Amino acid sequence: MNIAILGVGLIGGSIGLAARHRLDAEVAGFDPDPRTLERALEIGAIARSADSVAEATEDAEVVFCAAPVGRLPELVAEALAASGPETTVTDVGSTKRGVVERLPEGPDGERFIGGHPLAGAETAGVENARAELFDGARWYLVPTERSSGLAYDRLQRAVAGLGARPQAIDAAGHDRVMATVSHLPHVLANALVQQAGTTLAAEAERVPEVGPSFRDTTRVAGANPAIWADIFVSNGDAVAAGIDALVERLAEAARLIRSGDVEAVRAWHQAAAAERRRLLEADLVGGELRELRIAVENRPGTVAEIALALGQAGVNIEDMALYPAPDMRSGAISIWVAGEAEAERAATVVRGLGHGAALVGDGGEG
Amino acid sequence: MNIAILGVGLIGGSIGLAARHRLDAEVAGFDPDPRTLERALEIGAIARSADSVAEATEDAEVVFCAAPVGRLPELVAEALAASGPETTVTDVGSTKRGVVERLPEGPDGERFIGGHPLAGAETAGVENARAELFDGARWYLVPTERSSGLAYDRLQRAVAGLGARPQAIDAAGHDRVMATVSHLPHVLANALVQQAGTTLAAEAERVPEVGPSFRDTTRVAGANPAIWADIFVSNGDAVAAGIDALVERLAEAARLIRSGDVEAVRAWHQAAAAERRRLLEADLVGGELRELRIAVENRPGTVAEIALALGQAGVNIEDMALYPAPDMRSGAISIWVAGEAEAERAATVVRGLGHGAALVGDGGEG
Repeated sequence: MNIAILGVGLIGGSIGLAARHRLDAEVAGFDPDPRTLERALEIGAIARSADSVAEATEDAEVVFCAAPVGRLPELVAEALAASGPETTVTDVGSTKRGVVERLPEGPDGERFIGGHPLAGAETAGVENARAELFDGARWYLVPTERSSGLAYDRLQRAVAGLGARPQAIDAAGHDRVMATVSHLPHVLANALVQQAGTTLAAEAERVPEVGPSFRDTTRVAGANPAIWADIFVSNGDAVAAGIDALVERLAEAARLIRSGDVEAVRAWHQAAAAERRRLLEADLVGGELRELRIAVENRPGTVAEIALALGQAGVNIEDMALYPAPDMRSGAISIWVAGEAEAERAATVVRGLGHGAALVGDGGEG
Repeated sequence: MNIAILGVGLIGGSIGLAARHRLDAEVAGFDPDPRTLERALEIGAIARSADSVAEATEDAEVVFCAAPVGRLPELVAEALAASGPETTVTDVGSTKRGVVERLPEGPDGERFIGGHPLAGAETAGVENARAELFDGARWYLVPTERSSGLAYDRLQRAVAGLGARPQAIDAAGHDRVMATVSHLPHVLANALVQQAGTTLAAEAERVPEVGPSFRDTTRVAGANPAIWADIFVSNGDAVAAGIDALVERLAEAARLIRSGDVEAVRAWHQAAAAERRRLLEADLVGGELRELRIAVENRPGTVAEIALALGQAGVNIEDMALYPAPDMRSGAISIWVAGEAEAERAATVVRGLGHGAALVGDGGEG
């Protein structure tokens, strides 16, 4: 199989590595940055470096456009124009309507299928590329009304060959889902961190050491401005609609809380607990996630000791969070494991190491 | 020192253990639940179990009221009425205005100092009590205009003796800070999880495997309804005001994103990044937190192996998050360490184990 990659950063480079290792593909690459292109060649992400989009795509069966979201419509059009009538062109952008809506008229557009691998976007740079990046990851495929079935079939096979799990979704649905589960949490992080800055300046306080919830919620505040401004804007209406809907929910929550009706607040809170379980834990193999809170000294090796003992006992840690105490000498570790039995086993193991360990009813600091 | 504890759950029990072990105190306890009281006696959290508030407090120099927030004003009044004119009475509630504003008239009220230890509220039950719970933790002391200096001084010494770091704050300031850094993230978690439920039901989708930001933000959704409904309502006006302010910020963000002005969105995003650094990382010893993203197989022992190697290399992990891939066979681990040098060292160690590892520029999934 001949593959062309336009933009050989983390995602493009990883596609190249996976395609060469797993599909035994011939991989040509182009990048506007000559140093990036050279580096991609050095690490073997591409076998041939091209001087232009046209040169890269000339024999390609599949062309992956892996540029920043704002550049994609242009690059896709260029790739479609340069490539032959049998070539499938796709992209890997985090939002999908922008590129789909600006597809060129005419038969060229039939060869385009949008794509979005849910992997790896948290780092950048071809030097971090790896063949395993897409292993088991969902890879959204976004056909349009004009897409050819042949092109879709070929792309689906290629994506599966890279180790990913392809799944079709329409562009608008994709963007709405992403707005909710990815873009909106980033907006919330930004807003909350700014608000805390204002409140705490007024109180002349640093963030108190309580509130792992605050740390969790604001972790991505201001993350990677180079790509995020593009993502917010390219999915602007869906993100803004998501914000509007959330604003209504929050206003309703404020009304409820102001009412002072403890029972109603409790019912609202319990409904959220149920919804979270339904969303996140429904089809976990071992049962619902249980949280085990462990009190520890905060020194090198503590996490290791615990994780090692759990590993030796065959307990798999599904999630973990560290909550250092203010003095950084002590703290707590939360681990999440699947199912009650596993959780009990984990607690026994941890207590055997001499740490305090408690299964958390339903989490949350007070 | 004679200490009385009214309500011997996790916090009350831990106060008892710490007071007995560290202050060599005589500790009497009362709890409306006879089984809890008995259990507290068994584990040594109290030396004497009392049948009433009056019996528990009769010789006490300091009385800790450790009941749920909604019960505190009543219990504090009872403790003040029952105890002698030299007895200091305090509480450990997560919100402070409710109890302070409902203090009894007259000289009894002068003996009350509010309190809030920032520790341990994420679990519950006397069986999880431990003497080290407050080690290095901030413990807010909330005097009123009527509070006696003597009472404050005694409580401050007692709290420091339990291992905590006392700090004075006024009730309104305390409640505003907590509304922002603890209560509001919980409200956001609830609202976001409900919204995702609605959106994803419309799209017939489960939460896609992208979005550690979503998982982080919604982790505490619906946490512990028994205590959280009380907290929301008892701090209702501050929480609702926090929601109002956040709603304004979000509406402004929606306007900005709708405008399509990428540069303005980028500036907003960068300001959030700067604010977050300022809030969370200003006085970390080793420098700013750096994130190292590690690609791993998701099997028991992997986390241990990495953490162990880092520990042996003297690298302290300040924070950690696991991001399992959808197939649960592979995934990524993020660790945060303080400072550039430590981060580079951690990367070298992890790569030495054969894992892919990349320092994340500024985090966030795309």
